[in-house]
Amino acid sequence: MITLTSDFGLKDPYVAEMKGTILTINPNATIVDVTQEVEKFNVRMGAFMLASAAPYFPEGTVHLAVVDPGVGTQRRAILIQAAKAFFVGPDNGVLTLAAQNQSIKHIYQITNPKLILSKTSRTFQGRDIFAPAAAFLTKEVAPEEFGAEIKDPVKPDFAQTKRKNGVLIGEVLHIDGFGNIITNIAEKDIFQNQAKAINIELAGVSLKLNFCKTYAEVETNEPVALIGSHGFMEIAFNQGNAAEKFHMKSGDKVAVKAV
Amino acid sequence: MITLTSDFGLKDPYVAEMKGTILTINPNATIVDVTQEVEKFNVRMGAFMLASAAPYFPEGTVHLAVVDPGVGTQRRAILIQAAKAFFVGPDNGVLTLAAQNQSIKHIYQITNPKLILSKTSRTFQGRDIFAPAAAFLTKEVAPEEFGAEIKDPVKPDFAQTKRKNGVLIGEVLHIDGFGNIITNIAEKDIFQNQAKAINIELAGVSLKLNFCKTYAEVETNEPVALIGSHGFMEIAFNQGNAAEKFHMKSGDKVAVKAV
Amino acid sequence: MITLTSDFGLKDPYVAEMKGTILTINPNATIVDVTQEVEKFNVRMGAFMLASAAPYFPEGTVHLAVVDPGVGTQRRAILIQAAKAFFVGPDNGVLTLAAQNQSIKHIYQITNPKLILSKTSRTFQGRDIFAPAAAFLTKEVAPEEFGAEIKDPVKPDFAQTKRKNGVLIGEVLHIDGFGNIITNIAEKDIFQNQAKAINIELAGVSLKLNFCKTYAEVETNEPVALIGSHGFMEIAFNQGNAAEKFHMKSGDKVAVKAV
Repeated sequence: MITLTSDFGLKDPYVAEMKGTILTINPNATIVDVTQEVEKFNVRMGAFMLASAAPYFPEGTVHLAVVDPGVGTQRRAILIQAAKAFFVGPDNGVLTLAAQNQSIKHIYQITNPKLILSKTSRTFQGRDIFAPAAAFLTKEVAPEEFGAEIKDPVKPDFAQTKRKNGVLIGEVLHIDGFGNIITNIAEKDIFQNQAKAINIELAGVSLKLNFCKTYAEVETNEPVALIGSHGFMEIAFNQGNAAEKFHMKSGDKVAVKAV
Repeated sequence: MITLTSDFGLKDPYVAEMKGTILTINPNATIVDVTQEVEKFNVRMGAFMLASAAPYFPEGTVHLAVVDPGVGTQRRAILIQAAKAFFVGPDNGVLTLAAQNQSIKHIYQITNPKLILSKTSRTFQGRDIFAPAAAFLTKEVAPEEFGAEIKDPVKPDFAQTKRKNGVLIGEVLHIDGFGNIITNIAEKDIFQNQAKAINIELAGVSLKLNFCKTYAEVETNEPVALIGSHGFMEIAFNQGNAAEKFHMKSGDKVAVKAV
Repeated sequence: MITLTSDFGLKDPYVAEMKGTILTINPNATIVDVTQEVEKFNVRMGAFMLASAAPYFPEGTVHLAVVDPGVGTQRRAILIQAAKAFFVGPDNGVLTLAAQNQSIKHIYQITNPKLILSKTSRTFQGRDIFAPAAAFLTKEVAPEEFGAEIKDPVKPDFAQTKRKNGVLIGEVLHIDGFGNIITNIAEKDIFQNQAKAINIELAGVSLKLNFCKTYAEVETNEPVALIGSHGFMEIAFNQGNAAEKFHMKSGDKVAVKAV
């Protein structure tokens, strides 16, 4: 089983070229899209998508992610062997959140010319390097066959929260399609005092929100704070678009205090 | 075989989380998207999509549909056993049109804790309740294992036409991606007099349209009435966008008289 | 294995109806989307998508493409037997680029009533004629069973370049999702003099561009000319949108001179 995460979109033939490449090497592979609609070049969003979806896939799944502003430069192509799954993609942090969640065992650079397409384009390594690597992994090629082990992968700077005078400072990881504002503040951080409400500052607005279990506990078009299905704190409107109402976007800061 | 219909969109990881959950339970399941692009919370549109696609799938298919404004409230999770297929989703009408088309045998509430994810989020039952139920159905778990039979499913109020003084009053079920206006008026209603033309009122405009067999029977950018591939009356422009020209949207009324 | 290319979009149930039809005939078929997001009625774009993706699929793949402004008219439904694969769709040029790339052996009209859906709609031949034909091909039905051989397929007029006083005049085949301007000028045409730079005119603007191997060889937001992964010359901005900056669209002329 192979999953695909990218910023290629579904309008272009790029994703199909990757799938054809995989299926030429392993016609029995099951391929599932995580999403091809990551914002162009937004490594953070790609990392969030992959980290959200990966826990739900069977053991041994190969997760392929290509959000790759540095394609064709010196940035390395890597393969991460983690506790439950493999991760294949550029060494720019897009794989790290998901792989760390299940503890990383080894990381290998992908350089073996026998395991990539013979005519490699420098603008489309998703098809020419990463897709073949993922396909060969599903055919039981050992991870160490792909290249030398590395110990210094790029570490993404997103997804760290700070605490200052009892206030938790985090940021927006992602705005989902419903306009829900997903932060990088985890359940354990905010719920340590069994908080039932929070004071929150976002985009210059201060407000007090009750913590709920579900969107529908508040009236239609009322704001609510809750722990979303990913384990992170979300600000949402019941049947409304929170990101539009608060003018929030990915990367914006939020400051939260339990009350 | 399992089909998926939802308003989750393809930008977020939600659909992938459902697919991963299904494939963890049954790695041999074939999963086909009906659409993930139902308008957010538009149960009517979801019901139309599923009813359109379901007849073309093999006997025994499990159709999973999640358009679910009431997620996390008291609304029930249900499983419909119909003549040819199973339907899994919230009890809010999204399954009814499709299931009725092939006659409903039994409806069960989904409550058995052994057949849903152990750590259930209250905001994402598509992944935690409906996806496991669909996957277990493909593994031959009997429908009555999921919970108690129910006799009072929610009945959607869309999709009923009225007749008044020889005029048929219906409404717009859906605007498709070509801008074709698909009504809830069925072939048998309009064609009973072998009508070759109709007078139609829509959005304050009255016009007479010839009934055609195909879009291309009229000139480019001319309007046409026909029975679309779903068996419902459509108003279309040959290579143009009828909904934009007539400012019509889902739910709008139409009044039709054969002439 | 079957690939699908269309302008049906992912919002409507049409693609699912085709997939259900295929899987009813052959439940073991593997179906891969090339794209369903071809611009409505844009045969040229569909032809480009299919020609880009087809080379990456295994031998024996059946490629089904439906971009079909003339659906329901006299235009023929055809099946092309090429060296490596089959191509199924309307006889309007959408299949030609991809099929020519691997040399065409025979072309058959699809007319055998036993190999199409019994209740055929005149507005949705993708589901009623092309999907069944593709499915039966994967079940080893011989191509000549579908109908009479034809020798006069429609030839598309796109994708021809001209040379005039040392200047190569081509056109824009496609704007991809990154805003890259993909022309119909092939690698062999432009690189015959080992050109390292070009003078290019597009949309009234003249500029000199260096030829690079990869987007990232120029600074962020700088323009670059290169041969893309499809073998055609592209004009791109490193991490920017070239089509927006130059106001270019599919079909626009470009004039290029190596310097």
